[in-house]
Amino acid sequence: MAAKALIPALFFCFLFSISTISHSYRFYPPVKPCKELVFFFHDILYKGYNRDNATAAIVGAPDWGNKTAVASPFNFGDLVVFDDPITLDNNLHSPPVGRAQGMYLYDQQTTYSAWLSFSLVFNSTEHKGSLNFAGADPLLNKTRDISVIGGTGDFFMARGIGTLSTDAFEGDVYFRLRVDIKLYECWK
Amino acid sequence: MAAKALIPALFFCFLFSISTISHSYRFYPPVKPCKELVFFFHDILYKGYNRDNATAAIVGAPDWGNKTAVASPFNFGDLVVFDDPITLDNNLHSPPVGRAQGMYLYDQQTTYSAWLSFSLVFNSTEHKGSLNFAGADPLLNKTRDISVIGGTGDFFMARGIGTLSTDAFEGDVYFRLRVDIKLYECWK
Amino acid sequence: MAAKALIPALFFCFLFSISTISHSYRFYPPVKPCKELVFFFHDILYKGYNRDNATAAIVGAPDWGNKTAVASPFNFGDLVVFDDPITLDNNLHSPPVGRAQGMYLYDQQTTYSAWLSFSLVFNSTEHKGSLNFAGADPLLNKTRDISVIGGTGDFFMARGIGTLSTDAFEGDVYFRLRVDIKLYECWK
Repeated sequence: MAAKALIPALFFCFLFSISTISHSYRFYPPVKPCKELVFFFHDILYKGYNRDNATAAIVGAPDWGNKTAVASPFNFGDLVVFDDPITLDNNLHSPPVGRAQGMYLYDQQTTYSAWLSFSLVFNSTEHKGSLNFAGADPLLNKTRDISVIGGTGDFFMARGIGTLSTDAFEGDVYFRLRVDIKLYECWK
Repeated sequence: MAAKALIPALFFCFLFSISTISHSYRFYPPVKPCKELVFFFHDILYKGYNRDNATAAIVGAPDWGNKTAVASPFNFGDLVVFDDPITLDNNLHSPPVGRAQGMYLYDQQTTYSAWLSFSLVFNSTEHKGSLNFAGADPLLNKTRDISVIGGTGDFFMARGIGTLSTDAFEGDVYFRLRVDIKLYECWK
Repeated sequence: MAAKALIPALFFCFLFSISTISHSYRFYPPVKPCKELVFFFHDILYKGYNRDNATAAIVGAPDWGNKTAVASPFNFGDLVVFDDPITLDNNLHSPPVGRAQGMYLYDQQTTYSAWLSFSLVFNSTEHKGSLNFAGADPLLNKTRDISVIGGTGDFFMARGIGTLSTDAFEGDVYFRLRVDIKLYECWK
């Protein structure tokens, strides 16, 4: 009899599992990160004179801009390709643990705001693989959230949030960004 | 005895739950959206004379193009940075509820087709946060689907589909896009 | 009594289901792909003389570059818009089954490395819809993984990995890329 009684229980389990995945897909908070990482990245923009140590270059600019100075106002329309070292602390000269590679563009005419799409690329004893990011970066906010849209290697299929904060800047030549990464989908 | 009989049931539940997440990951239709949103966005391209009200500018162009006119044929190679107001109805002068910020590029030589990557950025009483998009936009199709690849704030970790349709256009200076957003993963 | 005994079992099922989705979200390996696809895509870069058969054009370049030749060193800063035919085998003249449309940019000053964001766009009897990709492509590695960040149509809401390998190249005018796509989230 107990065996018979199990049938509805199993059926319920089955139905419940199916229903969670076949209708709308909701994840109820609070959700805890499955992995947390913090890095700093260092961006030195090419300004016409510093090609030796520049890590980034303007490659697209509006009609009123050029490639050795940021456009006015608010750099609007400048598109920058970058290959920035990433470090574990805020020291530009610390040994890099990877590279931040991709592009950002300035996309607002009334304040400083950027849009980023890039990868963190790791090839160290600690991490192998990459994390891919995209999102809006309204620079004057203390913190800005962008999306982790995927990952490879150690970060296979990852999703999550990267919280950016400007750790330091020197005019429009150098900035240092702190990124606090929280992954909420971990497949490894 | 009933208690003993439960052990395999519990074990089955455990196995079933594990199996759904550890092997291939399928979601069976029909899937219902967990959130639906509709917006209009308004894009005014800079053409050399309209800097005061332009919301978008060509910042990259092919060798045969320039930054004050679209390239021929089919705008192929033009890369545009934009900061477009978004409204709840199709009126350019309605109060904006957010901004669409990012880039699009024209990537076909035989018809009008674009590729978009941008964010909808909200900071109103109704919505705070951003939705990030990427995808192909074959302009002459009545509707075109792009991906919601992530979100932040109210749209934390969202995924879904944005369906674009051209609501109006005036030559190559102005277009108005309607976007019907359906989220299928909601984490908030 | 057996009926009573079921109550904790059902409750356990409920708790277990809720707990998997409400806390951190882990998928345990091994994970099997739910769909596998292989394509080749063919990229012919515009070099100033070959506009008739070019499928790609430099539209952004650093200050020291131009739009009819790749920049030195390592093409750093070149941003390319492309509309490449995709085929089922490695023959450029096979009937295309779709297009790879989007952009890549070269983002390293010390070796060949690119960053890609594009869609595979299908409109054949076999596949309708698109797959959207983003990620880093360190060209000299034998294989490179990028992310499938979304899809539409037949590939509605897909996620996965695209593994790139350079199948052939001729100087900097032509390259053929093999992409092995493994989807791990299938919603259709």
